[in-house]
Amino acid sequence: MGSTFGHLFRITTFGESHGGGVGVVIDGCPPRVEISEADIQTELDRRRPGQSHIVTPRKEEDRCEILSGVMDGKTLGTPIALLVRNKDARSQDYDEMAVKYRPSHADATYDAKYGIRNWRGGGRSSARETIGRVAAGAIAKKILHQVAGVEIIGYVKRIKDLEGAVDPNTVTMEQVESNIVRCPDHECAERMIELIEQTGRSGDSIGGVVECVARAVPKGLGEPVFDKLEADLAKAVMSLPASKGFEIGSGFAGTLLTGLQHNDEFYIDDQGEIRTVTNRSGGIQGGISNGENIILRVAFKPTATIRKEQRTVTTDGEETVLAAKGRHDPCVLPRAVPMVEAMVALVLCDHLLRHHGQCELL
Amino acid sequence: MGSTFGHLFRITTFGESHGGGVGVVIDGCPPRVEISEADIQTELDRRRPGQSHIVTPRKEEDRCEILSGVMDGKTLGTPIALLVRNKDARSQDYDEMAVKYRPSHADATYDAKYGIRNWRGGGRSSARETIGRVAAGAIAKKILHQVAGVEIIGYVKRIKDLEGAVDPNTVTMEQVESNIVRCPDHECAERMIELIEQTGRSGDSIGGVVECVARAVPKGLGEPVFDKLEADLAKAVMSLPASKGFEIGSGFAGTLLTGLQHNDEFYIDDQGEIRTVTNRSGGIQGGISNGENIILRVAFKPTATIRKEQRTVTTDGEETVLAAKGRHDPCVLPRAVPMVEAMVALVLCDHLLRHHGQCELL
Amino acid sequence: MGSTFGHLFRITTFGESHGGGVGVVIDGCPPRVEISEADIQTELDRRRPGQSHIVTPRKEEDRCEILSGVMDGKTLGTPIALLVRNKDARSQDYDEMAVKYRPSHADATYDAKYGIRNWRGGGRSSARETIGRVAAGAIAKKILHQVAGVEIIGYVKRIKDLEGAVDPNTVTMEQVESNIVRCPDHECAERMIELIEQTGRSGDSIGGVVECVARAVPKGLGEPVFDKLEADLAKAVMSLPASKGFEIGSGFAGTLLTGLQHNDEFYIDDQGEIRTVTNRSGGIQGGISNGENIILRVAFKPTATIRKEQRTVTTDGEETVLAAKGRHDPCVLPRAVPMVEAMVALVLCDHLLRHHGQCELL
Amino acid sequence: MGSTFGHLFRITTFGESHGGGVGVVIDGCPPRVEISEADIQTELDRRRPGQSHIVTPRKEEDRCEILSGVMDGKTLGTPIALLVRNKDARSQDYDEMAVKYRPSHADATYDAKYGIRNWRGGGRSSARETIGRVAAGAIAKKILHQVAGVEIIGYVKRIKDLEGAVDPNTVTMEQVESNIVRCPDHECAERMIELIEQTGRSGDSIGGVVECVARAVPKGLGEPVFDKLEADLAKAVMSLPASKGFEIGSGFAGTLLTGLQHNDEFYIDDQGEIRTVTNRSGGIQGGISNGENIILRVAFKPTATIRKEQRTVTTDGEETVLAAKGRHDPCVLPRAVPMVEAMVALVLCDHLLRHHGQCELL
Repeated sequence: MGSTFGHLFRITTFGESHGGGVGVVIDGCPPRVEISEADIQTELDRRRPGQSHIVTPRKEEDRCEILSGVMDGKTLGTPIALLVRNKDARSQDYDEMAVKYRPSHADATYDAKYGIRNWRGGGRSSARETIGRVAAGAIAKKILHQVAGVEIIGYVKRIKDLEGAVDPNTVTMEQVESNIVRCPDHECAERMIELIEQTGRSGDSIGGVVECVARAVPKGLGEPVFDKLEADLAKAVMSLPASKGFEIGSGFAGTLLTGLQHNDEFYIDDQGEIRTVTNRSGGIQGGISNGENIILRVAFKPTATIRKEQRTVTTDGEETVLAAKGRHDPCVLPRAVPMVEAMVALVLCDHLLRHHGQCELL
Repeated sequence: MGSTFGHLFRITTFGESHGGGVGVVIDGCPPRVEISEADIQTELDRRRPGQSHIVTPRKEEDRCEILSGVMDGKTLGTPIALLVRNKDARSQDYDEMAVKYRPSHADATYDAKYGIRNWRGGGRSSARETIGRVAAGAIAKKILHQVAGVEIIGYVKRIKDLEGAVDPNTVTMEQVESNIVRCPDHECAERMIELIEQTGRSGDSIGGVVECVARAVPKGLGEPVFDKLEADLAKAVMSLPASKGFEIGSGFAGTLLTGLQHNDEFYIDDQGEIRTVTNRSGGIQGGISNGENIILRVAFKPTATIRKEQRTVTTDGEETVLAAKGRHDPCVLPRAVPMVEAMVALVLCDHLLRHHGQCELL
Repeated sequence: MGSTFGHLFRITTFGESHGGGVGVVIDGCPPRVEISEADIQTELDRRRPGQSHIVTPRKEEDRCEILSGVMDGKTLGTPIALLVRNKDARSQDYDEMAVKYRPSHADATYDAKYGIRNWRGGGRSSARETIGRVAAGAIAKKILHQVAGVEIIGYVKRIKDLEGAVDPNTVTMEQVESNIVRCPDHECAERMIELIEQTGRSGDSIGGVVECVARAVPKGLGEPVFDKLEADLAKAVMSLPASKGFEIGSGFAGTLLTGLQHNDEFYIDDQGEIRTVTNRSGGIQGGISNGENIILRVAFKPTATIRKEQRTVTTDGEETVLAAKGRHDPCVLPRAVPMVEAMVALVLCDHLLRHHGQCELL
Repeated sequence: MGSTFGHLFRITTFGESHGGGVGVVIDGCPPRVEISEADIQTELDRRRPGQSHIVTPRKEEDRCEILSGVMDGKTLGTPIALLVRNKDARSQDYDEMAVKYRPSHADATYDAKYGIRNWRGGGRSSARETIGRVAAGAIAKKILHQVAGVEIIGYVKRIKDLEGAVDPNTVTMEQVESNIVRCPDHECAERMIELIEQTGRSGDSIGGVVECVARAVPKGLGEPVFDKLEADLAKAVMSLPASKGFEIGSGFAGTLLTGLQHNDEFYIDDQGEIRTVTNRSGGIQGGISNGENIILRVAFKPTATIRKEQRTVTTDGEETVLAAKGRHDPCVLPRAVPMVEAMVALVLCDHLLRHHGQCELL
């Protein structure tokens, strides 16, 4: 009972990796927003398997159908339901999964919680579930851009120990999309691609860090004391598969500075706006956006599914070994970029509506 | 509109640092739990100012009154309201704060959001708000312990670059409480205390990392896909004042390993239980607790309020300088420990009830 | 943003009468409940148009597809998505509706609220939306029956001024389904059918009252003070199209009695259970079920769509007249019966889970 | 776990009739609204016992203290906590209640649900809980009036079988408050007062109907399909103690008309606004306000506490008799009027914010 996210702009995802399909219902979308299946498909294509040779070669077209809530290209204000059908999958690849728990996967915990589990391809815990998030995020991005010119750009900051040099204040979507690993530092990107290829060939996997910036976010978003903007962002990205850590602004590194070094001093800019000289706060102070760029990072662990043999147990409680078959991502990071962007967009859009409802009424 | 946290075990905090008082309403607490003002006071005393010479010397007794929901020492199942009165404060210390925004505080963003602000001592963004959380956490801890023997122990893992050696699997509350900085590595604790003293004398401040372990957590807690256990834990602690980062299990360091190195292999233990050899997952797989110890870390930035002079602006948009007066914490970490524990307890207790409601009905 | 209902057993409906389809996502359904498309179809068939000659003759098959959340005939504990495709409709019947507001319909208010409206056949405000509710209600009924043997039986109590004599304590589903108007008083049912036929022929419409009984409801369901059982029941049925009034137990008639006449005296029955001699409370006291039969009534207004000519206005603000074309129900009551049952089942099932989560943990 | 009401303007009440006190936390109140304790006290005085000789003579001053969320007479946008202390009560009057269940009260169901109960004076199920609602309603009324000039006026429409003639479109608050029974039909009011006096002397009690009108409500409020405006209004008033029925607009009587008789035809008024000739819809169509007056009615049963002897049972399961002692209302209707107004105000204010958040952003 945790498949709904958001308060006013509220999404509910559904679907397992095998079965009729996966999708999302978006309730609370403002009316009269121009939206098309093509807008959504663009984001889904950034997420989908098979988009390049460094991600899983599974052929999933992920064609999105709008079931409701849109008429003649405009949102109606009513729930928008989006459906992506599942394809007939090579489920014989998954027969072993019915009886052997994959290490560091959700197989064993789903069984422990529900006493039953769709073992075909990961079921509900499959990354395929994020299709609904990315589709909804596409709509959230559109609203944010239309209302306030907000730009949300994610990129791969680090793969294992290869870290790119990227300026979040100037990076462009074109730079991100210019290579298949989605790291705008092209020289580093090449080494990342090489490392992923090599890791994939060896049957192992690697992880890394996605950084995401949201620019032109209006001041005032965030609802203390629990729904602080960074708290909702943290929840949003920590609900993505494989995420292990979250940072806003200076993050863990900020703890090595003193207060004098860390504080963001204020000044008045040319337009008479209150600004900060530095941005260690990451665009959020006291849980509320301050108009500076929102900058966050998410750690993704190495993909759990590997072809190398590991110790595990069966559903009957016998010890055994397992080496995954099938076609898996040696590194999820390139495909995680649009997922992180989508979650950031969903949080910001929800908070935009909440702030408007409470604080811009009078 | 974000002062409520939790779904079934649901708390709502209220109060500014100056005004009638601060407190919390807990709705959904199971009935017939034995609880007393003393139980709650113990936790509040670990949080309160003036508890040692390395925290702010402000005299705040923080006496807790139970207004409702408890009769003859037992919970009624009805809302439990707890109130801690504010004392008359040296608010002349705060006069400057009415007109000058403190760098890296919430003054400017509250004004931007609400167009009004209680400038006396930080108002709603004051750490004093966490009194309600810690009080509610005390009750959550009691329920978790009574139902499943859960133990939640937080401690200071690092102050600036001084990192303690602590084994989360064996650390005890007595070890944590045996020194004023709440780091169970006593040799390191002495150096931490010295560093905090020295920093305080210089008018500056420092931050660090709190680690927290929850032991004996039942398998099956967590509600994918958005209310995954680590997602709700991340939100919970990232809503605490001064937090900048969150890690579960291997966290950011885990991204430097390969999948083969990182995966937690399964085995069957003496009792026939499915266990993992390692615990890089931090006790949670696929968003659901797996029965291993839950281990998380939270980064806290150096206290924003410092006595050293900094550049800032006035509410009228003039550039100026500010050097804080009053009595402030040179390091929030020792007092953050019970706050982190409380948030972890609130999340686990809420998920215990949710899991029981959905999955243990049939 | 109001398409979600329930707290633990939580449904979200989507869809307009014209467009891809209508459906529902059920989040929080307990795992391992046996459920099939046939179980759901049975209830949908009681709701669907064309089921008899006294309801609208529109041909809608309303075939339900389970998209997710069920495997091998059992619920997985994950969201259950159900979809019913829309058929190509005679939308030329609706051309006039694009420009003329139908009196006592939602056309004008949807335009006022959203500034846009799916004018094809009522869009979101169409009774077709209730398909998702009835489908979800079928699952709720199954859980309630399996856990506690709960029986929920609705029936037509009154059509215009024709009131049936029905004993809620003994009425059976077979009696309800034995005639097309769903009034278990057969003699009265015949006169009701005749009145509906005659009204339909004249191009006018009529309303009435549905009564519903829930038997064997466990004691203790209901969450004071706002989510009292009767409050949630009232909201549930007042959210159905065309409902104008709600009563629990003695209802409005109870206001004509004195306290001595109205109070339900207690006694101890043969099994040693506390029971009430009378049941003017309708099975709920202080917002909590008391183990007696829950009895409620819902008033449904005469169908707004009639073939007789009425004054109205155009979307351009011109006065005009309108006489509905197309195939409409002269009386919604027979089809409203499964809708009321579904809403009652959804409320009871949600409260069963909530009560279990909070009060049956310790 | 049902003590919170509302979505954006959200209240949480707490408190039993005996214990520290009762109160409310209001989260989501717009900032910069002028509010004082006097504003709130005015409404509390209309609700309080002892206000006239036809209500309970219990002396309860019900002095309200604002604990947070207001500074210098203006709301801060942060949670507003309001507290009314309980007085030392004649709890010896209640000793019998510890062991004997009062018929048609919540004593037995609270015990069944929670396994524990504050038996002193009704505990949580006491009408004293409504203090928090009325206090919060006073703030909601202020916002509604300030934003849109909304007027909410409740009055006693019927006591037992004595029904007043009142025009909801023109009735004034002065007329309502001009007599102690709060029926603006003065001739009828005198007979009502006489009947209440006579009933009180006999040790019995009576009920009746409160009608409430909300005028100048903006078009567009209400969130289909579940949070329709009439559905939320129904839930709101059906959560009040002693309510047994709800009607919007034509209500149950509307079921006796045909569609042609019942439909509200449209016309264009002098200002070019779309209006309805009649208002059987009660100001709401399709769950959304249409700008006409919102008119609803609530049935309140005769007070359950009477001095006449009744059969009942003890907590030990023995049959016995009970005749209430203490000072009780022979008729709750006069005091229910401000409660109904408050609940209507809370619903409208919440929907005003929700509509503003979603539909007035673009």
